[in-house]
Amino acid sequence: MPEMRHDPVQRRWVVISPERSMRPNDFKPCREEVDEFDIFAEGNEAHTPPEIIAIREPGTQPNTPGWQVRVVPNKYPAFRVEGDLDRRAEGLFDVMNGIGAHEMVIESPDRAIDFALLDPEIAFKVADIYRVRMTDLMKDKRLRYVLVFRNRGKMAGASISHPHSQIIATSVTPLAVAIELDSARRHYNDKERCLFCDILAQERLARVRIVYETERHIAYAPFASRVPFELCVMPKLHQHDYREISDDDLRDFVHALQNVLQRLKVALDDPPYNFLLHTSPNPESLTPRTSHWTTLRHDWHWHLEILPRLGSMAGFEFGSGFYINSTPPEQAAEILRSVAL
Amino acid sequence: MPEMRHDPVQRRWVVISPERSMRPNDFKPCREEVDEFDIFAEGNEAHTPPEIIAIREPGTQPNTPGWQVRVVPNKYPAFRVEGDLDRRAEGLFDVMNGIGAHEMVIESPDRAIDFALLDPEIAFKVADIYRVRMTDLMKDKRLRYVLVFRNRGKMAGASISHPHSQIIATSVTPLAVAIELDSARRHYNDKERCLFCDILAQERLARVRIVYETERHIAYAPFASRVPFELCVMPKLHQHDYREISDDDLRDFVHALQNVLQRLKVALDDPPYNFLLHTSPNPESLTPRTSHWTTLRHDWHWHLEILPRLGSMAGFEFGSGFYINSTPPEQAAEILRSVAL
Repeated sequence: MPEMRHDPVQRRWVVISPERSMRPNDFKPCREEVDEFDIFAEGNEAHTPPEIIAIREPGTQPNTPGWQVRVVPNKYPAFRVEGDLDRRAEGLFDVMNGIGAHEMVIESPDRAIDFALLDPEIAFKVADIYRVRMTDLMKDKRLRYVLVFRNRGKMAGASISHPHSQIIATSVTPLAVAIELDSARRHYNDKERCLFCDILAQERLARVRIVYETERHIAYAPFASRVPFELCVMPKLHQHDYREISDDDLRDFVHALQNVLQRLKVALDDPPYNFLLHTSPNPESLTPRTSHWTTLRHDWHWHLEILPRLGSMAGFEFGSGFYINSTPPEQAAEILRSVAL
Repeated sequence: MPEMRHDPVQRRWVVISPERSMRPNDFKPCREEVDEFDIFAEGNEAHTPPEIIAIREPGTQPNTPGWQVRVVPNKYPAFRVEGDLDRRAEGLFDVMNGIGAHEMVIESPDRAIDFALLDPEIAFKVADIYRVRMTDLMKDKRLRYVLVFRNRGKMAGASISHPHSQIIATSVTPLAVAIELDSARRHYNDKERCLFCDILAQERLARVRIVYETERHIAYAPFASRVPFELCVMPKLHQHDYREISDDDLRDFVHALQNVLQRLKVALDDPPYNFLLHTSPNPESLTPRTSHWTTLRHDWHWHLEILPRLGSMAGFEFGSGFYINSTPPEQAAEILRSVAL
């Protein structure tokens, strides 16, 4: 019997339909061509906009070779930093200027090395650069949210095949995050407990959906997973703001993240995926709706969502908000746990 | 300057980013292979589950050749009709059985003829069968919503290349529809006017986003279009329930729908797309939350959303609920208006 499961964070029903269940081998990601010209390669620094920040060999100049991780503005940015928000009405509709930032984090000079297999020390530097850029962007009080995400593979929306992640800072909170913030807030108002801490406690008791655990982080397949092999990576101790993570915690997080990305790579033949880092909104953002953010420290719990893009069903779900998932998360977790790394 | 636009129906901000604007020729839908075995072809009736209903030549038997339109259960249904909802808790989570229906509407015996180019009389029969199946399924009080949708092309989630649409009946309202119902309700509570009628009046005044108009229907590119060339087809006169459309109105609607699908086909080289029919929920559905449906007749306005699947950006939007659209709807509408059919 197919089962409908409700996610208390996204407040969404998902159909878990084992009748349609697929084994890992049923998913065939298209082999993708790599770009002819590698715009993010070492030596091609002049082809990107000037770098914002980079981890470099001592003595090398900006926008020249000699870097390990490099952040540049998106060449075709969806947002501009300059200008006013200029909020206005257009009849029934609301409009404002696309104020914000759109940055590319080039994770390695070598496009053959994906994030999952990056030297752990370099992967740490990538995760650290997220923290540095978040901190800097949140100084701009117009920017309400900084979303870090990664599109791996063209099927997942990557327009450049060289491994990279992206940072988008906007004057609004993305809808998916806004719904999660609201759910966490409601739960806290009712119970004076963090919703994510409660979920974590239940998952650690049930154990069937946990894929990997480090000292301070946990990676599990959510109860109402939207897509096969969806994963969530989360700190075990309550923590609401990615900017406040200690170096030790960040190293532990990166280890957990790389570990589960490697498991996905092995189990599903290097699948396309998106990951999205859901940290708390900018507490400095000067808008009337930020007043409740004074308690975010208690009710929000940062986490990273990984969405493999295996099925072709995404078309329907995309427009309806209704997900049919062929692989129960318990089964996905079991498969991923059994991967030998 | 990129612009943020807010949709009053979906209550979502969208970035319209003309700096990234693409002309129709920039979109290159992959040419797709057709299935080797055409399971929906005339003569292959035994390969599908027995038909639920069909438009047939007089004297032909069910599940034999001689049909024009044929409805069969999905062979791998995401839902089952038999059983109880059995709502229950699993700790923090909510679960119920996947009660519902999942049907395939085979739109033509000939897979070479897509819905856009179907004989108008047959296309009318397809649209009529939606109405018939909705009416029948809504007799089941457990089923709260009947969603009709169409995935055209594998990139849009179609697993079978033979032209077909699908009907999913569920015990919950899809999230995207639930948000729209709520917006329409709020607007009506404030103003005692239909939100969609208000939008329509504004669009007819502005005219810049209208693509095609018939006597009784209008097709336009929404102000906050999520994707390039998104369209909405809607009756001009207030009408909440697709089941209540007269034959004349339905014929007029099908004409408008086929016309804009043909325009998309010409302008964008037969793009993959999804369409989703948003009618009102089942007023007979016996749940505590249905009480407000007594006023649906006034506050809901059925419509059909068309989402071309051109970009590769869908990956990011999929997980964040945040859309970056490279083609302003005014430009899309102009391009589609100028198509010579």
